[in-house]
Amino acid sequence: MIEMRSDTFTLPTEQMMSAMSRAALGDDVYGEDPTVNGLEELAAKSVGKPAACLMPSGTMANLAALMVHVPRGGKVLVGNESDIYLYEAGGASVCGGIMYEPIRTRPDGTLALDDLAAALPPDPEDSQFALPGLICVENTHNRMGGRPLSQEYLAELRRFATRHGLPVHMDGARVFNAAVATGVPAAEIAAHADSLQFCLSKGLSAPIGSILAGEADFIEKARRVRKMLGGGMRQAGVFAAAGTVALTSTVDRLADDHRLAARFAAGLAEIDGIDVDPGAVTTNIILFRVTAPGLDDDRFLRAVQERGLAMGEFGHGRIRAVTHRGLDAEDVSAAVAIVADVVREAREAR
Amino acid sequence: MIEMRSDTFTLPTEQMMSAMSRAALGDDVYGEDPTVNGLEELAAKSVGKPAACLMPSGTMANLAALMVHVPRGGKVLVGNESDIYLYEAGGASVCGGIMYEPIRTRPDGTLALDDLAAALPPDPEDSQFALPGLICVENTHNRMGGRPLSQEYLAELRRFATRHGLPVHMDGARVFNAAVATGVPAAEIAAHADSLQFCLSKGLSAPIGSILAGEADFIEKARRVRKMLGGGMRQAGVFAAAGTVALTSTVDRLADDHRLAARFAAGLAEIDGIDVDPGAVTTNIILFRVTAPGLDDDRFLRAVQERGLAMGEFGHGRIRAVTHRGLDAEDVSAAVAIVADVVREAREAR
Amino acid sequence: MIEMRSDTFTLPTEQMMSAMSRAALGDDVYGEDPTVNGLEELAAKSVGKPAACLMPSGTMANLAALMVHVPRGGKVLVGNESDIYLYEAGGASVCGGIMYEPIRTRPDGTLALDDLAAALPPDPEDSQFALPGLICVENTHNRMGGRPLSQEYLAELRRFATRHGLPVHMDGARVFNAAVATGVPAAEIAAHADSLQFCLSKGLSAPIGSILAGEADFIEKARRVRKMLGGGMRQAGVFAAAGTVALTSTVDRLADDHRLAARFAAGLAEIDGIDVDPGAVTTNIILFRVTAPGLDDDRFLRAVQERGLAMGEFGHGRIRAVTHRGLDAEDVSAAVAIVADVVREAREAR
Amino acid sequence: MIEMRSDTFTLPTEQMMSAMSRAALGDDVYGEDPTVNGLEELAAKSVGKPAACLMPSGTMANLAALMVHVPRGGKVLVGNESDIYLYEAGGASVCGGIMYEPIRTRPDGTLALDDLAAALPPDPEDSQFALPGLICVENTHNRMGGRPLSQEYLAELRRFATRHGLPVHMDGARVFNAAVATGVPAAEIAAHADSLQFCLSKGLSAPIGSILAGEADFIEKARRVRKMLGGGMRQAGVFAAAGTVALTSTVDRLADDHRLAARFAAGLAEIDGIDVDPGAVTTNIILFRVTAPGLDDDRFLRAVQERGLAMGEFGHGRIRAVTHRGLDAEDVSAAVAIVADVVREAREAR
Repeated sequence: MIEMRSDTFTLPTEQMMSAMSRAALGDDVYGEDPTVNGLEELAAKSVGKPAACLMPSGTMANLAALMVHVPRGGKVLVGNESDIYLYEAGGASVCGGIMYEPIRTRPDGTLALDDLAAALPPDPEDSQFALPGLICVENTHNRMGGRPLSQEYLAELRRFATRHGLPVHMDGARVFNAAVATGVPAAEIAAHADSLQFCLSKGLSAPIGSILAGEADFIEKARRVRKMLGGGMRQAGVFAAAGTVALTSTVDRLADDHRLAARFAAGLAEIDGIDVDPGAVTTNIILFRVTAPGLDDDRFLRAVQERGLAMGEFGHGRIRAVTHRGLDAEDVSAAVAIVADVVREAREAR
Repeated sequence: MIEMRSDTFTLPTEQMMSAMSRAALGDDVYGEDPTVNGLEELAAKSVGKPAACLMPSGTMANLAALMVHVPRGGKVLVGNESDIYLYEAGGASVCGGIMYEPIRTRPDGTLALDDLAAALPPDPEDSQFALPGLICVENTHNRMGGRPLSQEYLAELRRFATRHGLPVHMDGARVFNAAVATGVPAAEIAAHADSLQFCLSKGLSAPIGSILAGEADFIEKARRVRKMLGGGMRQAGVFAAAGTVALTSTVDRLADDHRLAARFAAGLAEIDGIDVDPGAVTTNIILFRVTAPGLDDDRFLRAVQERGLAMGEFGHGRIRAVTHRGLDAEDVSAAVAIVADVVREAREAR
Repeated sequence: MIEMRSDTFTLPTEQMMSAMSRAALGDDVYGEDPTVNGLEELAAKSVGKPAACLMPSGTMANLAALMVHVPRGGKVLVGNESDIYLYEAGGASVCGGIMYEPIRTRPDGTLALDDLAAALPPDPEDSQFALPGLICVENTHNRMGGRPLSQEYLAELRRFATRHGLPVHMDGARVFNAAVATGVPAAEIAAHADSLQFCLSKGLSAPIGSILAGEADFIEKARRVRKMLGGGMRQAGVFAAAGTVALTSTVDRLADDHRLAARFAAGLAEIDGIDVDPGAVTTNIILFRVTAPGLDDDRFLRAVQERGLAMGEFGHGRIRAVTHRGLDAEDVSAAVAIVADVVREAREAR
Repeated sequence: MIEMRSDTFTLPTEQMMSAMSRAALGDDVYGEDPTVNGLEELAAKSVGKPAACLMPSGTMANLAALMVHVPRGGKVLVGNESDIYLYEAGGASVCGGIMYEPIRTRPDGTLALDDLAAALPPDPEDSQFALPGLICVENTHNRMGGRPLSQEYLAELRRFATRHGLPVHMDGARVFNAAVATGVPAAEIAAHADSLQFCLSKGLSAPIGSILAGEADFIEKARRVRKMLGGGMRQAGVFAAAGTVALTSTVDRLADDHRLAARFAAGLAEIDGIDVDPGAVTTNIILFRVTAPGLDDDRFLRAVQERGLAMGEFGHGRIRAVTHRGLDAEDVSAAVAIVADVVREAREAR
């Protein structure tokens, strides 16, 4: 099976497995796991923040960030196409008493400052308004095709936020893809945010874990929230060891995933019946539409699946494919061929 | 002062004051206030529902409805221009652990079924999605200029909702304005919703109070929520007496408010420098824009205020004026003249 | 019917009804109801606090106080026999994400400082502990028989609280009963608390309403919470007028209720088969037990009810009777006689 | 260092490390990790429940259980000395809008049925009461010295619960210690509860993870809650592999821990200045008091620490020591000697 549903399917590298089996361990709930402590220090440094905290998932990292930044009754301004808004089960409302205010996401993954401004209450003294407490951005932006945000935009957003007394949280689940694609170090990207979440478990290939990074007191509060949510784990060094390997040895290779994605997009672009914009593919995510007559998304996905290619439906009539360490050029060529076959057969069947 | 900021400024009628001073009272927390019990029965009947509960405000009536319909972790589909979403301080997220999903509101106050359908999770089994638990509509629609919703739309919405296993709650703060404007009895309008809230305190002129109506077991649960929120009141018959008068003697006269609103809109339409669509004014709310050079909204509002006319800013560069029992034709003529004066003087000052 | 279930059954005085019918009104959601504003000023002064806010109920006043004092995830230390813990439906957990930690209530209504100290986490840095954010006391203490707390205790408690960085909230639903019984002005009692709630609707006889008082910024935040909970009411001056009369003309007469309570207790004490401690009755609440053979509480309550006397079950095998403005000496004598009759007949029936 | 602070300090066995390094992996968020699926099936069977779900911690397993069993606004009856009440940061109030009602814990770790009955509202229709939704028990009971609950008690509790329409959740973090100590299979113990949580990471020695077990639909709902809380992990098979080893190969050896605990208690009992009841030590937890003059708990703990023995303060003036796989008879003898030395020196220093 050529697995292109998500980069979350990456398996740990051999180096990770080996590191895990030799990790020095302790009880991290007591703060005594040396491997976790080491990873947290390394991770903070890698994104240029004073402190970091290991989380069991990106969902918890984002949730804890929202709960620390926004008091009960505040609202968080998030993209209407962001993972935080769409795929995290409303956790901030449930656990934090926080209201989500979705802001229209532009095709490049940014939120227009005018739209953000419109979400600020005309009169903050007026008790009928929930008060905004945080702006979230996503980088790279999953639903917008893995787009990295530009440094110019992030700087402008941060100035806007500061002017309105609002912190910025970056859901950087794939922030290292952004760094590799744009050539800007992750720490410079993260400099535009008060807090940042990134996943060790997507393109970076670690089996488990996300990092929440920010100021020291922010992270201290996030640790409290983590414990309450049930994210305090005992010998977490077991998988932190893999996270350390991920940060030290799998970041640069994300460029390979990007090359494969470009190649896949180029291949798709030559298929009559597939609508894809190769120019929009800058990291490891490819979004496209099936326009061939006689194929709806479900039928298309089942047909490629039967031929050994897994991809996923992605809203707005789009299919998503994701490249990652588990794929090579041959897989991608085979994937293009499978798509071409399926489209052709559908055409012939009419 | 000609008060056109809101119909919430209506004062009780003499008949209400007299009814209040003679009301039979008891402790409503024990369910023993006969005036409250009588009002609740009358109110339920007036909107054709089996049961009703008196609330201190429309905000609490809506909040209780959301909390009864939607479990913790569910989401409520509401118009992005609805009062529930914009003006009720995010209460359902805070008190209910409920996520708001705002749906684009069309100019006629309706939510497109396609947009609602897009907010339903592609796969309800997928745990990353908050599950929808309720659709809310607002009738008449405040931010869309007091528009009543058509019976055709409401019927279609209800079918959609039923097909997807979702209840419908109507924020009918001004549902009697809708009934009077369309000639459709309130009970027929309410028949398209599982629960309905309406205010005794806006055009109906009672000093305090809103009604939540629905099935008997729904109302029983809403009473529990009301108590928890602190909406259980002792001798509430004091103001329930006014509510009873409101329901029996001030509904029909809403037609007067609508006539005044039409008259005001027609007057504004003749002023060069005011942008208003008199055809869009169907109940007691008039939305317009100041296009005269040299006047922004703040300046305009201050200038009319100095001349004895109060109106309010209403988002998207609009001014809102509302007619109600406290105004007569003379007030409206005077209001038009004040606006005309202010616009003229601004023009002359340039 | 001799109504001794609660002082919440008091009906408004004629002066109140008259004041209500003449009250100057406005829209209190806009802060423009002069009668409400006047009452809030008077109420703040009456308990010596800089600011006050009118609430629809004591439940909401307490809930708002807890939500302002305690952040999400904090815990509130409350008496295990307090109304806040037992009778307010867990609102602070639901709406505030606040944990209740009940502390054993001593017979005099106080919480032992040692017990409070034991509820403080040994290590506040340890993320497994919810952090205490508030101590609540109840004065007079309902479930402990209407006991007023001593100034000595309150001063000691406040010192303890201050030493641990905790604010104190007083549920003073019947604080004026405490003031009248002890001869200490309410403002001196309230001086030992950061915030205070008292009811206009119990012994003070207003139909509706409670006051939350405290520092100006505290009250401002409480107004926000009130709006979110749905406690913002329009022409609330209607019942605020009665509240003003309550504060100016019904406080001193609480002494009458206390005398009646003492008289009732003395009467009960002479009945063989009733266990009551007249010395414990210091305000308007009488707790007693039915020890007569052949009578359980239910049977006793039904029997007196049939003879025209209403009282209530009160936990721990106790019956509660409450005196108030709606009762006079004759009622109390009749009530004693009814109890005596019921007990005697039960004995004879065996 | 002789580590007796907790059995959470156990390190994985070699067999676990090896299993982890060879585990078949997949994305568990998609339900496709075969090792996780295998562990969940095995774990369900081991406690005789139809279904089970792997959680990152016991805290999340308990929190999810509470949130599934108890609706917003309900209350959970928990022991006042239980870990759920004391050590889980009030999560059910924060994330679930659930009120905790602590019930006095008896020395044997049980909650008296009379005390539970007293926490049921006299009138469930009365909206002032939060309604009970769940009873929790802890087995073995940590703060009561690792006491296993008897089958008789559990059966009686379950009958009580069923009679009142309440489910029972067992916090069985150390339920296999109970099973080994009493000789009753875990499944027979768990049969008295609707849901059960147990830790793979304490005495069972897995590095991470807890299991929540119950009916299939209960577990399905718990998975949703887990995702929302951020407990969905990708290649969780990494540590699930260790959990499988734990369940298949470390349960029986808990008897060794119990023998060591008995030995340690017997040793302490011979030291003048230590108050311990060896008869109360039935599993792997030893509670004792330092009564030697000149030693408070802090000083004692620091002194033994300096000599290479780590133990912890445990409330009510008690010290807790825990035995586990990382200790042997020699360690325990050394630990006794260290305590004896410290006590002796303290005495001599006076």
